[in-house]
Amino acid sequence: MSIETIIGDPVRLLLGDKISDAYKQDIYVPKVADVHAVALAKTTDEVRKLVNYAIEQDLKIIARGAGTGVAGAQVPIHGNELIIDVSQMKQIVGFDEATMTLTVEPGVLLSEIQEYVESRGYFYPPDPGSKHSTIGGNVATNAGGMRAVKYGTTRDYVRAIEVVLPTGETVELGSLNIKSSSGYDLKNLLIGSEGTLGIITQIKLKVLPLPKYKQSVLLAFDSVTSATDGVLTILANGIDPTALELFERGTIVYSETFTKQLLPLQTGEAYVLMTLDGNEMATVTSRADVVKQLLQSKAIAVLALDVEQEKLAWKLRDHILVALMEFTEFEMLDEVVPINRFAEMISYTKELQGKHGISVINFGHAGDGNIHTVLMREGLDQETWIAKREALLTDLYEKVAALGGLPSAEHGIGIIKKSYFEKMIHPVELNLMRKVKNAIDPDNRLNPGKLL
Amino acid sequence: MSIETIIGDPVRLLLGDKISDAYKQDIYVPKVADVHAVALAKTTDEVRKLVNYAIEQDLKIIARGAGTGVAGAQVPIHGNELIIDVSQMKQIVGFDEATMTLTVEPGVLLSEIQEYVESRGYFYPPDPGSKHSTIGGNVATNAGGMRAVKYGTTRDYVRAIEVVLPTGETVELGSLNIKSSSGYDLKNLLIGSEGTLGIITQIKLKVLPLPKYKQSVLLAFDSVTSATDGVLTILANGIDPTALELFERGTIVYSETFTKQLLPLQTGEAYVLMTLDGNEMATVTSRADVVKQLLQSKAIAVLALDVEQEKLAWKLRDHILVALMEFTEFEMLDEVVPINRFAEMISYTKELQGKHGISVINFGHAGDGNIHTVLMREGLDQETWIAKREALLTDLYEKVAALGGLPSAEHGIGIIKKSYFEKMIHPVELNLMRKVKNAIDPDNRLNPGKLL
Ligand SMILES: Cc1cc2nc3c(=O)[nH]c(=O)nc-3n(C[C@H](O)[C@H](O)[C@H](O)COP(=O)(O)OP(=O)(O)OC[C@H]3O[C@@H](n4cnc5c(N)ncnc54)[C@H](O)[C@@H]3O)c2cc1C
Ligand SMILES: Cc1cc2nc3c(=O)[nH]c(=O)nc-3n(C[C@H](O)[C@H](O)[C@H](O)COP(=O)(O)OP(=O)(O)OC[C@H]3O[C@@H](n4cnc5c(N)ncnc54)[C@H](O)[C@@H]3O)c2cc1C
Repeated sequence: MSIETIIGDPVRLLLGDKISDAYKQDIYVPKVADVHAVALAKTTDEVRKLVNYAIEQDLKIIARGAGTGVAGAQVPIHGNELIIDVSQMKQIVGFDEATMTLTVEPGVLLSEIQEYVESRGYFYPPDPGSKHSTIGGNVATNAGGMRAVKYGTTRDYVRAIEVVLPTGETVELGSLNIKSSSGYDLKNLLIGSEGTLGIITQIKLKVLPLPKYKQSVLLAFDSVTSATDGVLTILANGIDPTALELFERGTIVYSETFTKQLLPLQTGEAYVLMTLDGNEMATVTSRADVVKQLLQSKAIAVLALDVEQEKLAWKLRDHILVALMEFTEFEMLDEVVPINRFAEMISYTKELQGKHGISVINFGHAGDGNIHTVLMREGLDQETWIAKREALLTDLYEKVAALGGLPSAEHGIGIIKKSYFEKMIHPVELNLMRKVKNAIDPDNRLNPGKLL
Repeated sequence: MSIETIIGDPVRLLLGDKISDAYKQDIYVPKVADVHAVALAKTTDEVRKLVNYAIEQDLKIIARGAGTGVAGAQVPIHGNELIIDVSQMKQIVGFDEATMTLTVEPGVLLSEIQEYVESRGYFYPPDPGSKHSTIGGNVATNAGGMRAVKYGTTRDYVRAIEVVLPTGETVELGSLNIKSSSGYDLKNLLIGSEGTLGIITQIKLKVLPLPKYKQSVLLAFDSVTSATDGVLTILANGIDPTALELFERGTIVYSETFTKQLLPLQTGEAYVLMTLDGNEMATVTSRADVVKQLLQSKAIAVLALDVEQEKLAWKLRDHILVALMEFTEFEMLDEVVPINRFAEMISYTKELQGKHGISVINFGHAGDGNIHTVLMREGLDQETWIAKREALLTDLYEKVAALGGLPSAEHGIGIIKKSYFEKMIHPVELNLMRKVKNAIDPDNRLNPGKLL
């Protein structure tokens, strides 16, 4: 069947010049190849036919959502890729309150999901910064975000996915059942597989009742080490925070400059911004008090935020990336280490700064050990930047590995971290991943060269 | 290398007559085959050597923990199996409070883990009834239990596992990192795989701070349907119970007879026993009050239990199985359906009772849709029992499938549910499982004939 027959609507079939560069790059990975075509599918059946078309024509396939990925996983690298863009599969199929299950097509945006459920008194906890990413992309990268410390990542909210396999077959993995010891867990295998094992065409999400109350607390510390000590104390005492973000003064200053507003606390080298949520106000405030008691000797200041201050503090936190984009060229990483190695990892990044002559700032999801180390390009020419960056990253990921960490907490491996990932992971495990990939996609048709 | 060289200690190597029948059957599956040998390994290195020995000798391998499995998964069926019994690998290797990680060998018993962490103020939530099962067996079956509605199943507490693969290679899957988007999730693939993909030789478990307070509430209803309605109301209102158990009067009466004690409520056809836990007494009691308000019109009676009553009610719940074993011959199932189909499933089992002439009683983990339907043998001769049982199960699992359910919530497929499972699961998914099995264990050496 010709591709024009499959996608009857010419607006949904992009060929040649009509394919913008946005399809060929992401914010860190430049364009290196063209593509065969971009097909904007509207139904699972179209996706299935497109996969069969790719089999007939021996094309590679890239599944694509909103293209906000930052690991190059959605970027073509061979030149003969068929991009199956599912961003127009954007129906909210149904919401079943009895099982608290929201069924959506993969192109629905995270922000649309959050609005939809919150307006009905429910809550979808995963909260990556990129509210305009698609839920399909979130599932394919196992997206994380601010609330992972209490609520987990995207993985934890996927009850079932419909998937078109590289054979063109369609299958649903997972179910609405809360427990299962019925065979291999293939659903979790697909989640986070970055489009290399199947194309996700429908998702059944678990949602929760919306917590009734919240309270944020801002803590200032004299060093990153004492801030991370504070984080461990909070975690060990059953406080169960919704979010536990850490940022250095040198990081938040970008947001302050950009928004022309100041963080409610100005002293200190490092800050922890914590939010608590719950259904009883008394619990939320009493936990905030416990944190105050536990940490008043370790912190320089502990401030329970009123509603305005809370908004401001979170606005500043949320604007870190945008502010960086405004003022500087940079590359942001998303390494993760066990929570008790967080401080050690951050101080090592400071050593690397001296060693390699690239400025480094950090922020991150301290509650779950996920650091966003930001390498500042500061006007370095392309060649110098590439060389210095590579040398720094080699050291950095070696340290991550030595601390028992991983290269990606939430963004994925894509192509940008592939060479480091392959060095960090045990060869037996890497080989096992290759065997699984080969078993499911023997022609290496789905997103080849990514992740593995 | 001879097996006697690998296991130097003759006490740990059972051959011929020295192999008791306990190794060849479980409580529902009778002995059908002998085994090559039983080797009680003490170290990962011994397990590795035993796997290599099995490769050389072309033997099949069954990994075994405490043998409390109830799906026949640990039962030999070919006659040439080497049983690798890891019950003597029972060291608690270490407890790291900073990351709240307990590292154990696979033969450590669930009860030992619970005691170890609780005496230190921590909490390991999974709570299957079989406290003398091994943690390795729990991981291999993704064991469930009473607290899954709030805390999830074994899967949710496994940070990492060390596994000996059917190639004889050893690999660690997972890590202490809380988030990961770094490659395929092989850890979850191994969890619940019933010894068919690898032998688990070490486990890193996540533990939580022990909740400070708890409160149980007993609710009596005039029918199972109103009881399950009540359950849905509780779940929809953010009550977040630790346990939410449902049992019919016809079930709990066995426990009452056995223990010679009575449930604190005696009216009603069905009961819900709920426990709440938390770190603030006020929250726990206020939630109990909310449940009372929400359900006083739907229930016949709602009773907040004092400490003695709570003990008694849970003792009766816990003794259902033992009481059944004492008074009757039976087979217990562990089907699961989406929580809003729980009532429908239970009433269907009552229809089957009439249709097939086998008495049926039910209890289960209502909060997570997991029903334990119990088929009462009531003196039927072997031939009649087998025929009636099979006819009933065929109907029952058809209904489970029609309701979107699964044959096993927590016990596993083993051999006892295999034929039903293969009919219930979509052929594409079954085929995908076979491909994965074949990729990891191409010689079909690990527990062949089980699960798939
Ligand atoms: C400003 C900004 C902030 C961000 N903040 C966060 C954050 O806090 N946390 C976080 O985790 N990430 C964050 N990200 C990264 C990014 O938004 C996520 O990776 C997101 O999940 C990608 O979704 P997408 O729809 O844009 O996917 P795309 O970029 O289109 O694709 C990403 C990957 O998913 C695959 N894919 C997409 N759709 C499908 C499908 N239907 N089936 C199979 N595979 C598919 C692609 O093949 C590719 O491998 C941020 C990005 C930006 C630009
Ligand atoms: C009275 C009673 C109550 C029970 N209550 C519950 C309950 O509430 N919830 C629940 O989920 N289950 C329950 N069970 C079932 C059983 O206890 C669980 O399945 C348990 O997890 C089995 O552990 P085990 O150590 O006995 O494993 P075994 O019976 O020895 O083995 C079970 C399976 O796990 C595999 N296996 C064991 N160890 C390993 C290893 N180290 N590596 C790889 N594979 C391995 C075996 O090959 C087999 O497939 C109950 C059983 C009984 C008898």
